[in-house]
Amino acid sequence: MRVLGIDPGLTRCGLGVIDSLRSRRAEMVAVGVERTDSAASVDVRLGVLADALDAWLDECRPDVVSVERVFARHDVSTIMGTAQASGLAIGLAARRGIPVAMHTPSEVKASITGNGRADKKQVTAMVTRILHLDTPPKPADAADALALAICHLWRGAGTGTSTTGPADFSDRTARGRQGSGLTAAQQTWADALKGKHG
Amino acid sequence: MRVLGIDPGLTRCGLGVIDSLRSRRAEMVAVGVERTDSAASVDVRLGVLADALDAWLDECRPDVVSVERVFARHDVSTIMGTAQASGLAIGLAARRGIPVAMHTPSEVKASITGNGRADKKQVTAMVTRILHLDTPPKPADAADALALAICHLWRGAGTGTSTTGPADFSDRTARGRQGSGLTAAQQTWADALKGKHG
Repeated sequence: MRVLGIDPGLTRCGLGVIDSLRSRRAEMVAVGVERTDSAASVDVRLGVLADALDAWLDECRPDVVSVERVFARHDVSTIMGTAQASGLAIGLAARRGIPVAMHTPSEVKASITGNGRADKKQVTAMVTRILHLDTPPKPADAADALALAICHLWRGAGTGTSTTGPADFSDRTARGRQGSGLTAAQQTWADALKGKHG
Repeated sequence: MRVLGIDPGLTRCGLGVIDSLRSRRAEMVAVGVERTDSAASVDVRLGVLADALDAWLDECRPDVVSVERVFARHDVSTIMGTAQASGLAIGLAARRGIPVAMHTPSEVKASITGNGRADKKQVTAMVTRILHLDTPPKPADAADALALAICHLWRGAGTGTSTTGPADFSDRTARGRQGSGLTAAQQTWADALKGKHG
């Protein structure tokens, strides 16, 4: 299974791709940060980000996308940009039939380091170790994106956004994009479209 | 000039298209509401909305998009979905080189009714009157989307998201999509891309 982790943001959007191996191991496929010019208007920044996200989805063809869950209690001055960037990332992935899971920062930290209140340095250190990297991924947003991807692989089903429950989410991601016929996610998608137009 | 007004939302996303005529008059081109199934997961809902928004942009080819500005002080339970839907709408429009303006609810109400605290009934009544419609647009989200479009036409430049100021925004929308060469918006876009990759 290939997981694309996305740490959404307008100034820096972290992206990290991993493939799952046997025995809870994983290898890094790609990592990067998409930046938009903070001097540009919000619309232009979101447009640039839309193109960048689609390029990552085209290139990496993930089976599942893992996005940081944004809370309204975050810093008010940055919350809107982060929420808008996350909406864009989620919508662009979902329209392709790729399931999207959301994980809170504390879920990610707990999953990677065993401590839900770990600092960025600890998370980066563990990501480097888990993926057997020679050098720590930088900046922190890139490490966070890889942590989101690893967290999804390890926590898996339980924290999906699917309202039909963990079992269904696990099922629909497990079959992946190589399966014959519709995955459960694609079926949900098809049903949603049918309901909308029918 | 053709304006697409968008009242972003996951459950109901209002869309209204108007063309400007002489003497501050306008005519309605299209109006509608895109709904997503509240029983579906957020990712599927945003994916359905992405396709719907692109269909409106393809069909209507607006010169400018006017979106309701979402505030973090709104109801916390709905703010995230609204912010995510707005990010998606703005990103999809901006990536096409279409300038996006944002207007607050009170700006819209003041512009349409003369009262920034007008109720929905008043806004709907004035939209019906301004656009010479036979029947009031329903539901309220549809009327709100038309109000956003009218507001942009009348208030114009002053409330754009452009950080280079009102004059620039006015300039870049006035030339529209029919102009020869790059509009200012497209230039900003090109510059942003250049800055990013260069």
